[in-house]
Amino acid sequence: MDHTGLPADDLARLVAVEAITRLKHAYLRCLDTKRWDELAELLTDDVTCAYGGGAYTFTGRDAVMRFLVEAMGRTSMLTSHTVHHPEITLEGPDAARGTWALRDEVLDLEAGIRIRGAAFYDDRYRLLDGSWRIAHTGYRRLFEELEPRPPGVRLTASWWEDDGRSRLAPAPPADDGAEG
Amino acid sequence: MDHTGLPADDLARLVAVEAITRLKHAYLRCLDTKRWDELAELLTDDVTCAYGGGAYTFTGRDAVMRFLVEAMGRTSMLTSHTVHHPEITLEGPDAARGTWALRDEVLDLEAGIRIRGAAFYDDRYRLLDGSWRIAHTGYRRLFEELEPRPPGVRLTASWWEDDGRSRLAPAPPADDGAEG
Amino acid sequence: MDHTGLPADDLARLVAVEAITRLKHAYLRCLDTKRWDELAELLTDDVTCAYGGGAYTFTGRDAVMRFLVEAMGRTSMLTSHTVHHPEITLEGPDAARGTWALRDEVLDLEAGIRIRGAAFYDDRYRLLDGSWRIAHTGYRRLFEELEPRPPGVRLTASWWEDDGRSRLAPAPPADDGAEG
Repeated sequence: MDHTGLPADDLARLVAVEAITRLKHAYLRCLDTKRWDELAELLTDDVTCAYGGGAYTFTGRDAVMRFLVEAMGRTSMLTSHTVHHPEITLEGPDAARGTWALRDEVLDLEAGIRIRGAAFYDDRYRLLDGSWRIAHTGYRRLFEELEPRPPGVRLTASWWEDDGRSRLAPAPPADDGAEG
Repeated sequence: MDHTGLPADDLARLVAVEAITRLKHAYLRCLDTKRWDELAELLTDDVTCAYGGGAYTFTGRDAVMRFLVEAMGRTSMLTSHTVHHPEITLEGPDAARGTWALRDEVLDLEAGIRIRGAAFYDDRYRLLDGSWRIAHTGYRRLFEELEPRPPGVRLTASWWEDDGRSRLAPAPPADDGAEG
Repeated sequence: MDHTGLPADDLARLVAVEAITRLKHAYLRCLDTKRWDELAELLTDDVTCAYGGGAYTFTGRDAVMRFLVEAMGRTSMLTSHTVHHPEITLEGPDAARGTWALRDEVLDLEAGIRIRGAAFYDDRYRLLDGSWRIAHTGYRRLFEELEPRPPGVRLTASWWEDDGRSRLAPAPPADDGAEG
């Protein structure tokens, strides 16, 4: 614990940790819903990224965004990235580091494959004009597996079809208080 | 950031965010362990819910609880819902909104299927008599897949058998300090 | 809510909850990256553990560490444990309880199997010399499934090979701002 124990310092630290946590959450929401313009604003101009456990590295917001849109822009690629276990350390009034556990899953409907993995992120953050941004993000894989989508699997919902509504159930049960 | 920067306001906001976070955590614990009476107390009387990415919508605690118990009450349906990435915004002293990422998995042992999905929640919360409650919950699917349980799969534990104890290992390793 | 509503108490509670949360996060990072020495320091001397939903119970740091290293030490066993939904309650100035939802996955490359499960932790924590430690950890399974690794699956990354770099893509796309 690097704080002094004074309430004011503790509170400032908790507020910064919460803001950085929200930044990471927003980044991942934008990634999986393909909101590229909103995602770009969360990065510093000179951001560095190492995706694929270091297989792909980029410098600068433009290079990063070009890669993300090219690699994950099509709606036949459905992705879910969730992060866990933040350990965020302030390194000064406007700089921080953070580790996170990642679980991710990619359904590539075109290729008929599923990729599932786990990793640890090691990120750096910077405070610019009152907003925390991602200055570096990268991860190292615990594992990653690629497999054919299993026989008999059926996609029953997608964000880009029917507003993400499930097609599992043709006949919803009766509900006297139904909204719609 | 909607806070003023004054410590007292920041602290009140962090305390409210933590209370809302716990509310959501308790809701999901009750859902997966089928503690319906405890779950009902976490909802407002006039709660609205949109499950299945909007396929099922309900108004009022009674209608919601009837649906949940009917759809997920039997113990041959094993469920795990985890939420991630809270972005919670206070909209007044007794109102808040929040988005969350959801990953969920349902094992239906009777039907011999597995349903796995990802979604984003958009919730509303209200403070009533000093306790935050869920006033609206609903989600939109990133994806959802239904598949037959794979060949050779074996259920090795369930909450409702042997108190959730794993049957994986017939002979535990020696332990000179064993409790039981 | 057991706090008095006074800002100072609220802040002390939030700081303690954050420290306990980080403790749990560090424990799981050390578990999945097999950092046994660092993990041992997070436990009290007289820690009690109940793994496998109570199938394996141990008393004392040495017995716990012996079990963990024996059960999960080899690098052909790849694991990911993520925890969710903390509900942490302070029971005094140096004691706390906490529940968490667990999702875990084990790939045993030697046995050619995959084990996936969900559970709820019920932990106890103690503050010793200014640091929170795990005094008890144990969980009860919602479900656990063992299955053969599916046909056609391919491991494309592991923490212990190539520094966790993905082997998915032989030819990364052009990047004029590439770092490496």
